[in-house]
Amino acid sequence: MKRVAIIGVTGAVGQEFVLALNKHPWFELKQIAASERSSGKKFVDAIRDPNSGILKWHLREEVPEYVKNMIVESVDDIKPENLDLIFSSVESEAARDIETKFAKDVPVISTSSAYRYEPDVPILIPGINDDHAELLNVQRKNRGWKGFVAPLPNCTTTGLAITMKPLLDKFGAQKIIMTSMQAMSGAGRSPGVSALDITDNIIPYIPKEEEKVRLETGKILGKLTDGKIIPADIKVSCTCTRVPVIDGHTESVFVETTKHADPESVKKAMQEFSAKISVIGLPSAPEKYLMVHEDPTRPQPRLDREMSGGMSTVVGRLREDTVFENGIKYVLFSHNEKMGSAKGAVLLAEMLYKKGMI
Amino acid sequence: MKRVAIIGVTGAVGQEFVLALNKHPWFELKQIAASERSSGKKFVDAIRDPNSGILKWHLREEVPEYVKNMIVESVDDIKPENLDLIFSSVESEAARDIETKFAKDVPVISTSSAYRYEPDVPILIPGINDDHAELLNVQRKNRGWKGFVAPLPNCTTTGLAITMKPLLDKFGAQKIIMTSMQAMSGAGRSPGVSALDITDNIIPYIPKEEEKVRLETGKILGKLTDGKIIPADIKVSCTCTRVPVIDGHTESVFVETTKHADPESVKKAMQEFSAKISVIGLPSAPEKYLMVHEDPTRPQPRLDREMSGGMSTVVGRLREDTVFENGIKYVLFSHNEKMGSAKGAVLLAEMLYKKGMI
Amino acid sequence: MKRVAIIGVTGAVGQEFVLALNKHPWFELKQIAASERSSGKKFVDAIRDPNSGILKWHLREEVPEYVKNMIVESVDDIKPENLDLIFSSVESEAARDIETKFAKDVPVISTSSAYRYEPDVPILIPGINDDHAELLNVQRKNRGWKGFVAPLPNCTTTGLAITMKPLLDKFGAQKIIMTSMQAMSGAGRSPGVSALDITDNIIPYIPKEEEKVRLETGKILGKLTDGKIIPADIKVSCTCTRVPVIDGHTESVFVETTKHADPESVKKAMQEFSAKISVIGLPSAPEKYLMVHEDPTRPQPRLDREMSGGMSTVVGRLREDTVFENGIKYVLFSHNEKMGSAKGAVLLAEMLYKKGMI
Amino acid sequence: MKRVAIIGVTGAVGQEFVLALNKHPWFELKQIAASERSSGKKFVDAIRDPNSGILKWHLREEVPEYVKNMIVESVDDIKPENLDLIFSSVESEAARDIETKFAKDVPVISTSSAYRYEPDVPILIPGINDDHAELLNVQRKNRGWKGFVAPLPNCTTTGLAITMKPLLDKFGAQKIIMTSMQAMSGAGRSPGVSALDITDNIIPYIPKEEEKVRLETGKILGKLTDGKIIPADIKVSCTCTRVPVIDGHTESVFVETTKHADPESVKKAMQEFSAKISVIGLPSAPEKYLMVHEDPTRPQPRLDREMSGGMSTVVGRLREDTVFENGIKYVLFSHNEKMGSAKGAVLLAEMLYKKGMI
Repeated sequence: MKRVAIIGVTGAVGQEFVLALNKHPWFELKQIAASERSSGKKFVDAIRDPNSGILKWHLREEVPEYVKNMIVESVDDIKPENLDLIFSSVESEAARDIETKFAKDVPVISTSSAYRYEPDVPILIPGINDDHAELLNVQRKNRGWKGFVAPLPNCTTTGLAITMKPLLDKFGAQKIIMTSMQAMSGAGRSPGVSALDITDNIIPYIPKEEEKVRLETGKILGKLTDGKIIPADIKVSCTCTRVPVIDGHTESVFVETTKHADPESVKKAMQEFSAKISVIGLPSAPEKYLMVHEDPTRPQPRLDREMSGGMSTVVGRLREDTVFENGIKYVLFSHNEKMGSAKGAVLLAEMLYKKGMI
Repeated sequence: MKRVAIIGVTGAVGQEFVLALNKHPWFELKQIAASERSSGKKFVDAIRDPNSGILKWHLREEVPEYVKNMIVESVDDIKPENLDLIFSSVESEAARDIETKFAKDVPVISTSSAYRYEPDVPILIPGINDDHAELLNVQRKNRGWKGFVAPLPNCTTTGLAITMKPLLDKFGAQKIIMTSMQAMSGAGRSPGVSALDITDNIIPYIPKEEEKVRLETGKILGKLTDGKIIPADIKVSCTCTRVPVIDGHTESVFVETTKHADPESVKKAMQEFSAKISVIGLPSAPEKYLMVHEDPTRPQPRLDREMSGGMSTVVGRLREDTVFENGIKYVLFSHNEKMGSAKGAVLLAEMLYKKGMI
Repeated sequence: MKRVAIIGVTGAVGQEFVLALNKHPWFELKQIAASERSSGKKFVDAIRDPNSGILKWHLREEVPEYVKNMIVESVDDIKPENLDLIFSSVESEAARDIETKFAKDVPVISTSSAYRYEPDVPILIPGINDDHAELLNVQRKNRGWKGFVAPLPNCTTTGLAITMKPLLDKFGAQKIIMTSMQAMSGAGRSPGVSALDITDNIIPYIPKEEEKVRLETGKILGKLTDGKIIPADIKVSCTCTRVPVIDGHTESVFVETTKHADPESVKKAMQEFSAKISVIGLPSAPEKYLMVHEDPTRPQPRLDREMSGGMSTVVGRLREDTVFENGIKYVLFSHNEKMGSAKGAVLLAEMLYKKGMI
Repeated sequence: MKRVAIIGVTGAVGQEFVLALNKHPWFELKQIAASERSSGKKFVDAIRDPNSGILKWHLREEVPEYVKNMIVESVDDIKPENLDLIFSSVESEAARDIETKFAKDVPVISTSSAYRYEPDVPILIPGINDDHAELLNVQRKNRGWKGFVAPLPNCTTTGLAITMKPLLDKFGAQKIIMTSMQAMSGAGRSPGVSALDITDNIIPYIPKEEEKVRLETGKILGKLTDGKIIPADIKVSCTCTRVPVIDGHTESVFVETTKHADPESVKKAMQEFSAKISVIGLPSAPEKYLMVHEDPTRPQPRLDREMSGGMSTVVGRLREDTVFENGIKYVLFSHNEKMGSAKGAVLLAEMLYKKGMI
């Protein structure tokens, strides 16, 4: 069993890590850490709001027994020499320092954006750009680290990059216009989105999100050559909004492909891609990596967020687009807290483990 | 005072007509009609759900006193010879027959789609294409009618066409890609969207909506020449979704203009257009026809739906778009039950009255 | 395998029956019926809304494969001679006629109120008043039927009666004051509660509900003597409201007991009762029949509705009440569509089967 | 014009004060204060969330012009010598110290609970216990203050005490059992209730709320004799819950009266009481102080929160109760941020001003 720790364990993503590692066949949770305020407390006490008395745990499953009484440590007390892997979901500005410190000794898989845009750091989605993992060795060498930092993309990028990959491979892609309708859980838990802000409402702005999606999509779909990633030559423009949905991001996508791509061919390309996905058989991999609905009323967050435990990316409303020369449009759904975050990070860890990198 | 009737008075739009005509300086409500099921009842009894006992009235204002005890008649009992104008909000397939019958004698202003796509029927937004009203005279002559049918656009088209008009005039426009996040009240009241369908959810499909927006935007922004409307040469593609918002449609818009249009110039063009709008001074006209927010978190349905009583179209997040050659993107908000429907229809009636057409 | 049918299969409760009977070890679904409008259609087509295209299926689990293509029959085409048991969830006024017709030949377990208040008809909650099942034999004899009608209580009664049973047994009970906060799914699916009525709102009235709870609680907690049920001598008063919650009823309960009952003793009484519940081991029985939370922020619908697949009744906030002489107050949660409806009906069928009555 | 200040101006209640004092005929806002974090900023900048960029202002009306550019001061910089009155809505533990400091020089009207339970401090609801204002003079003398502290009750007490007053006067009252369904705005704005906690959910617990309602109801309905308040001899027991409603508390109330009180007499008593209410004619007084609905589906938060600008207390579902000997039950609605908070505090100030106490 590989010995792992979670840094930022009390936050939204940290809690998902706790679930994703429950009874994991390869990884054993040895240490958990969070900010000073929580350190020294049992996990179950650290996540209770002191004013309202409400347990800040919003997952369908109960808090797993194995973690309830684990003591939350301060970050400084985490000892990398006793660990094989660290999952980091620190969201604050401290993320970079924390990840740097640990990567010197041990692999760090991170959901933060701290390292995403460095030249020697790949942004990895297991199943999509596994070959970019090679860049982690360059990173190690460059920086003289025993470990590395392997970040996931922003949760809004995940679904877009996954659905674009088979399109790009089969038809080529020039342009993407996307509008997201993002779930409230994407804004975290402490305090998270205020109910007074979002009930019966839409917030049409999420700071920095649109630029992240643009940069990350290009990098993920790019090519690793000579120790560098050449971003894919696709123009991306998006508007990101917050909607009153608990979990799961919906994205309305319009794509200009290089070759003509009719909806039936796109569906087939996605299904074939999904059937041969690299991560098949890994413990956290979904039964269906990419699902395509015929029913025009799907995907719907409340119905599709349970698909394969939130690990499926779900597509619907595939239609010809009438504005682009070779245009295709669709709606996608991706679970921001599962495939788009902690559980996706665990799947990434599984993929790197299989490659012998952990 | 012009004598008016409302057909379809018990529905969502009919109820808004009731409010919009309350104490109107020019129009006096003389008759109200709905389906057989309601006829013979007082208005206030006709809108109560027989099972739950709930009054199917969802407007902030109480049911106005003037209409509470008016008797709902069957459509067949409406006598056009006693009327100067009919507002029709019939949504069923009967709309076409009903409107045809009355237009023989009296002007009909309609929120239904029954006549929208006929060559001799303009789709009118007061302030945007007032000159198309001339086509109503052609229609009269063609059909040998004393009255006419003047339809409004679909409520999702309204905000798009209004915001596009100053863009088109100033910069030219080639392409529009739009994703809508539409309010639940757009689906009517009896029964309307089920809470079980939409709570914590998004429905990514509204039957026929996208094609309506495409056709209507072109027609409204087109030119009337020789008794015909030549649609504007703009490609429009959209995805229409339903979100858990009570009132007001939000639209994420990406436009390719002919000339370069930077955000500051677009803002100025919209504000100048708004300042000189034709409908200024009409009883139902908003103080600000088109509003542009600097605050990136606006427009928001809950905050912007009250602007000028729901008659303002509100724009925010004006930014350069990076996909189109000359691209501009923004988010708009338009109140589907006010400017986009009954109150917009009353504003249209006011405009036609001023032109001497009613 | 016992051969069963579902009458009213397309409704909210009917759909839960479909789930509850999926892969059932003792009952095999042979026929399904609904109103004329649905008959002749495949199940999956019968539950799609013809206007919006939305599948009127709101359960977390997908439509089970085994029922997708079953043909919905009209009620008249159901042949009782080929059946061992009928589950009826007809909610219309037709329920009485339909249940009467079938009970002549075969046992009918019903979620409707049609027969609940007849002297020779018990209202059964498996685990609470199993001994009242004996009255079904009286009913058979009285009416000359081969079958019988065995109704469940209203879903709001279920949680109240279940939590009151151990209180009554251990301490005696005089008075109950209850305020319910009921889920939207309790109002059915076609059309169900309108989102415009309930979003950001409470409806403080549910027609007939309060009287049902009063009558049924007394009857269920009563004694069967000489072929008659003597209702428990408990005064019950309640106010029933509808709140914006998808599934699961919450009830705030104040009880005057005969003997003093401190919170700790009540908790113990409930837990001991639960541990020895009669239905243990039946296929649909919950792991915990009655759960008591210490955490004062529980029960919460979103967190507690999953407990044992919706079959647990969950209690929290046990406190001394200061108004009654011997007063205890608490909040309970009961899943209106699981234990309170179809799945509870299947559990009842299992109990009757074990008793040899089916 | 009396010169006033608001302490705690950036919070939920503080913002309501800003609205309630806009264009007030008697009171002029001279100073505003909040915590150190806000001091030195313009009001409009102080209420913007630094992370999301969202303006933490949730009121239908826009931020009034008169306050937008006022500088928020630190509490220490408020000079009581330049003021005639202070409105305090500090919610933290600092409330007591702050109010003490200012009351030495100037009257303080407070929405906090800091002083509510002191023997020489009345809890005032204008219109209900105006005579208790006399105790403020005792307080002044006792403490050697030039000013005084006059607190409002908790927002959940307000509606209960208002509806109980005519009942008590006319019929006498022995016992009250109440379950509240409280709005999210009652929990403040920074951060306020998290959308992830409350969407599709109920939280059955609000720390300390139930005890506050019990104590305050007795005190408000009590008698002032010899410089002391003898609490009313009514037993009160309640369960307080949080529901997904934006504004306005709903309460389900069961009362045992001393004399028999049928619903019709109660209605009449409430209406007569309302017609002669003491506050008639004050600038912030509602047109109808207490409204009684016949429609059993009312009150509803979304429909009733606008009544007289949120200053009416609204009653519905008046029925005989079957548990108490002389029992009456009803549902009430009271706007927690208007009559139950800042606007009620301004009405209180108006009442005290008329009495010459400010």
